[in-house]
Amino acid sequence: MAVSYQNLKTQTLDDVRAAIRAGTYASHTAGLGQGRLQANLAILPEAYALDFMRYCQRNPKPCPLVGVSDTGSPFISTLGKRLDVRADVPAYNIYRDGKLAGSATDISEIWQDDLVAFAIGCSFTFENALQRAGIDVWHITNNTTVPMYRSNLQTIPAGPFAGEMVVSMRAIPNDRLGEANAISDRFPYAHGAPVSWGDPSKIGITDIERPDWGDPAPVPEGFTPVFWACGVTPQVAIENARLPICITHKPGHMLITDVAEDAEVPVLKQD
Amino acid sequence: MAVSYQNLKTQTLDDVRAAIRAGTYASHTAGLGQGRLQANLAILPEAYALDFMRYCQRNPKPCPLVGVSDTGSPFISTLGKRLDVRADVPAYNIYRDGKLAGSATDISEIWQDDLVAFAIGCSFTFENALQRAGIDVWHITNNTTVPMYRSNLQTIPAGPFAGEMVVSMRAIPNDRLGEANAISDRFPYAHGAPVSWGDPSKIGITDIERPDWGDPAPVPEGFTPVFWACGVTPQVAIENARLPICITHKPGHMLITDVAEDAEVPVLKQD
Repeated sequence: MAVSYQNLKTQTLDDVRAAIRAGTYASHTAGLGQGRLQANLAILPEAYALDFMRYCQRNPKPCPLVGVSDTGSPFISTLGKRLDVRADVPAYNIYRDGKLAGSATDISEIWQDDLVAFAIGCSFTFENALQRAGIDVWHITNNTTVPMYRSNLQTIPAGPFAGEMVVSMRAIPNDRLGEANAISDRFPYAHGAPVSWGDPSKIGITDIERPDWGDPAPVPEGFTPVFWACGVTPQVAIENARLPICITHKPGHMLITDVAEDAEVPVLKQD
Repeated sequence: MAVSYQNLKTQTLDDVRAAIRAGTYASHTAGLGQGRLQANLAILPEAYALDFMRYCQRNPKPCPLVGVSDTGSPFISTLGKRLDVRADVPAYNIYRDGKLAGSATDISEIWQDDLVAFAIGCSFTFENALQRAGIDVWHITNNTTVPMYRSNLQTIPAGPFAGEMVVSMRAIPNDRLGEANAISDRFPYAHGAPVSWGDPSKIGITDIERPDWGDPAPVPEGFTPVFWACGVTPQVAIENARLPICITHKPGHMLITDVAEDAEVPVLKQD
C-alpha cells in the first residue's frame, strides 16, 4: 500500500527507508530522513568510472562526490551500513546509449557486475539549514520538486563527460541574500554557495516559469531568484557521453544516507 | 646556481616556480608562493587510478583531492595554465614495486603514457591562516619540515590501497586550541579540523620527539600537540599497494598551484 509524503515526513530514517525499499513510496525525498545527508545517484560501467570521477573532481560545485562503491558492489559502506543502491532510491531513470529508456523503483534485476555507483551531494542539506534560519523554501512548504534549469555555464570536461551546468532555483527575500549565501557556503558537499543570482538570462535561462526539470516556483515581489549548482548536471553529462547503460535517481528522488547532513566529511565511522 | 629559501620567500609565484622548474631550488615549500594552494602529488599508472581515487574519496581528511590529470598528461589545467607535474615540484620520490627506488628534481625522462597525476591538498593553507591569526607555526618560523607520524588510525581501504593515517603535529598554545580548530575546519581541501590533540599515545605515537618524517618540533609548557590528517598518508597506502611504479613529491616539497589557497573550490576559471 502506498505511503504518503505527509505521513513519511515525521517518520524515522528506518521507516522512510523501509517504505522506499518496499516500493510503497516512490516520490521525492525533500525534507525526509530527519537530517541525514541525501545524495544524487549515478551508476555506470567501470570502463567509464575513472573519467566520471575526474569529471566530478573538476566540477565540485555541481558534482560533490560523497560516496563511491567498489566495482560490482551495490553497497557504499561509507554512507550506510545496509544501504543498497539497487532499492533504496524511490525512483530510478535508466539510460541506454544516452537515451532515457525507462524508469523503475528497483533495479536489482538489471544490476551488472561491472557497475560502479556514485553518490553526489544534493541541495537538501543547505535547504534544511535555510529553513532552520527562518528562510522559507517554497517547494518544500508546497510539496513540489525544486525547479531546475539547463544553464549556459559550461562544465570542465573529462573523457566523454561534458555539458552545461544544471542549476536549481530558490527565491530568497532580498534582505536575506547575504545570509542565504553564507549558509550554503558552509556545505561544500551540498553545492556550496550559489553560482548566480538575479537576472536568469545571465546564465542562459530564458523563461524562469518553465524549468527543464521539477516544478515551477514563484519569485514574489521583494524576492530574488538564486541559482545553485545542481546534482542533475552529471545526468546531462552522462546523456552526452552516450554510455551503453547508466542508471540515475529520478530528479528530486534521492538516496537518503546514514550520514548526518552536517558531518564534516561524508564518511560513517567504520567498525 | 642554487637559490636559498630565505631569498625565495619574498618572491612571486612565477619566480618560485621558475627556480623549482630549473632545478635551482630543491627544498621545502612552506610559506612560498604567496597564498597559492599547495598540493601533495601522487603519480601512478591508470590501471590503479580508479581505486586510488576511491581511496581518496573515502578518506577525505588525509587525501582531499584537488586535481587529477588526464591519463598520460603531465598537466592539470584546473590547477594551473602551465603547471607541469614533471618539473614543478622541488623534489620527487620514485617508488618501484612499493619500495623507494630513488629521488629526482625532474621526472620528465621517466614519464609514461599511462600515468595519472593526483594532487592532494596540504596543510600549508591552514598554517598560513593560523599565522594570520597570530598563532605561530614553529616549523615555518624555524625553516624546518613539519613533524609527521604514522598513527594507528586506520584508513578506509579501496582496492590495494590501505594503511594507517599519517598525521602532522603543530604545538598550539592551550588558550588558542578552539581557535586553531575553527580556523582549520574552514579548509576542507587542506585536511580540515584536527583528528586528535593532547596525549600522542591515543593515536599510537610513542615518541613525539622522533617523527617518522620531517623534523622534530618542541611542545613547550602551556602548549598542546595537535594532530592533523596528513597528505603523506597516500604515500603509505601506495607503498602498501606495491605498485610497479609510483612517483610522489618528497614530503614537505609540494606542488605550488595557480589557485588561491582560500578559493571556494580548487578550480581555476577556464578560458
